[in-house]
Amino acid sequence: MNDTGSRSWRVAVVGATGLVGKEILSVLAERQFPAGELRALASEESAGDTVAFGERQLRVDALGDDSLQGVDVAFFAAGRELSAARARDAARGGARVIDLTGCFADDPDVPLVVPEVNGDLLGPGGAAGHPRIVSAAVGSLAALAAVLKPIDDAATVRAVTCSTYEPVSGIGRIGVSELSAQTMKLLNGVSPDPEEFPHQIAFNAFPEVGTIGPDGISSAEREVATGLRRVLGLPDLRVFATAVRVPIFFGLAIAVTVEIERPLSVATAQAALRTAPGLLLAEGEDGTYVPLLDAVGTDAVHVGRVRVDPESPTTLGIWVVIDCVRRGAAVNAVAIAERMLRSAE
Amino acid sequence: MNDTGSRSWRVAVVGATGLVGKEILSVLAERQFPAGELRALASEESAGDTVAFGERQLRVDALGDDSLQGVDVAFFAAGRELSAARARDAARGGARVIDLTGCFADDPDVPLVVPEVNGDLLGPGGAAGHPRIVSAAVGSLAALAAVLKPIDDAATVRAVTCSTYEPVSGIGRIGVSELSAQTMKLLNGVSPDPEEFPHQIAFNAFPEVGTIGPDGISSAEREVATGLRRVLGLPDLRVFATAVRVPIFFGLAIAVTVEIERPLSVATAQAALRTAPGLLLAEGEDGTYVPLLDAVGTDAVHVGRVRVDPESPTTLGIWVVIDCVRRGAAVNAVAIAERMLRSAE
Repeated sequence: MNDTGSRSWRVAVVGATGLVGKEILSVLAERQFPAGELRALASEESAGDTVAFGERQLRVDALGDDSLQGVDVAFFAAGRELSAARARDAARGGARVIDLTGCFADDPDVPLVVPEVNGDLLGPGGAAGHPRIVSAAVGSLAALAAVLKPIDDAATVRAVTCSTYEPVSGIGRIGVSELSAQTMKLLNGVSPDPEEFPHQIAFNAFPEVGTIGPDGISSAEREVATGLRRVLGLPDLRVFATAVRVPIFFGLAIAVTVEIERPLSVATAQAALRTAPGLLLAEGEDGTYVPLLDAVGTDAVHVGRVRVDPESPTTLGIWVVIDCVRRGAAVNAVAIAERMLRSAE
Repeated sequence: MNDTGSRSWRVAVVGATGLVGKEILSVLAERQFPAGELRALASEESAGDTVAFGERQLRVDALGDDSLQGVDVAFFAAGRELSAARARDAARGGARVIDLTGCFADDPDVPLVVPEVNGDLLGPGGAAGHPRIVSAAVGSLAALAAVLKPIDDAATVRAVTCSTYEPVSGIGRIGVSELSAQTMKLLNGVSPDPEEFPHQIAFNAFPEVGTIGPDGISSAEREVATGLRRVLGLPDLRVFATAVRVPIFFGLAIAVTVEIERPLSVATAQAALRTAPGLLLAEGEDGTYVPLLDAVGTDAVHVGRVRVDPESPTTLGIWVVIDCVRRGAAVNAVAIAERMLRSAE
């Protein structure tokens, strides 16, 4: 369900044939988003294809100069270059833009939003006013922010160290195809060449997600560090991330270690996580957790294996898993749109 | 090559048909270990099988009460229960025992050894004297100790946070078979049931390696923490590990974050790692690393992606990969045997 008032809106999804674009359409349909008109836009090659919107099939149009005219809400999920080229024009033309590509993550004039954490920036009385463009935090950042907020409220977070287990769907359908094809080849005794990733990804793992900069930090790692400081409003927070690609399709996992100011018992930390919005705490015996695959298809940020270092009562460990495409991208983006529209009637 | 003097020795490999046992035989052959006699021992079911020792084929015998009589050196690589039941008897019977199962990792009377780091405990004048049993550190611990030693020498290590990417071979051949079989089934549209692991491992990841204790820490995580303190001789070192099983066959990777006392530049840290025994530094452009698969079949602990947190000059990140079975187990164990024998002529 949603709470965007009684009006209906003209909505566009740019990149509608991609993994994330399709998932946005699913989430819009499931949440009965009041889309009076819905434009599914993609590149020339996909024009004429159809994509599902609930029970209906939508015809895909090629994104042209006039495609976004008259649109109230535009989701950009077609890659950074396209967002850089078109998102500001769309906003100037009157659309509220939700960008999912990270293109504006470092722009101080564009709010970087994780709905459960700093969604109040948007909407009536929000500190961001009525922004025309909002940057939706990427999956790992969105999950980490949602997990760290209640811990920070309970015990003040001083530093975060994390390692990711990132799926091939992080680069879209081409990543999914590459892992399938390579796995199939290897099981048939054929050695595959990498095409979309820097190395073979089947039965492999490597610490290169995005581009590694001259300081040795990858763009994925930098986005998590600078993004957490922004979203949590903690400019001095120490964050050190290692982003690693693993041979997994849709789930994303993060091993998080948090240094807190005041000691927390496991039970108190679990209590803080249990009541936080958007999280689902794995309950059961000690050490219970959700394996990465079980998060796929769900809307929650799953947390488990909450534990305190026996030698250091201010060191907390948490295992975090989400569906990278659905929860990490589409659900967040639609929730942001709902908040933007709530104040726009 | 080796340096165990001119004598020849009677050697036994207990668990000779397992992944680790077979690899020990390979390494003994490659290093021309002076084995005058070599007994390949395994359970009843494997008796009569053959295993390779260089160009030769050895007949496998069932491990019986007299199998270790007269043996000078016995490698135990057949599981903790068997080590617990038989290793002390073998030592009392005159054998030098190298245990690879972790059975004695917490026993203060049994040296826990990573040859490059604290191998001097053994052999002439070593602090451990002439121990009859030595515990060979498991793969992740051996790799971490070898990497942290030169960093500690250069800048004093205060705390270590690490996450592992652990292969299915960590539980032996049954793990390798399970990943192959599950992958094949999934590619044929059949949903596999987990048998040897707590969850499906194909295209999955979960933070459960060994057994999770009542404090929420897994046995693999505890072994790394207590083992690093012992091997590095730093009883107050803070170590927080997350051990995660991933769908990979033989390589083991570790994302390591080290808090050091004195700031190090990337170049200085690299210089310390470059000259440390047993390590191989990935050289090249900034951010160079070895993907997990490339470590398979090699004897080195590969280190790369050495980087300093731009916001905190005493936080260092390192990506570490080894062949779990070969380097993480067999090479270490044979190197320990060589050191034990050097002083035993």
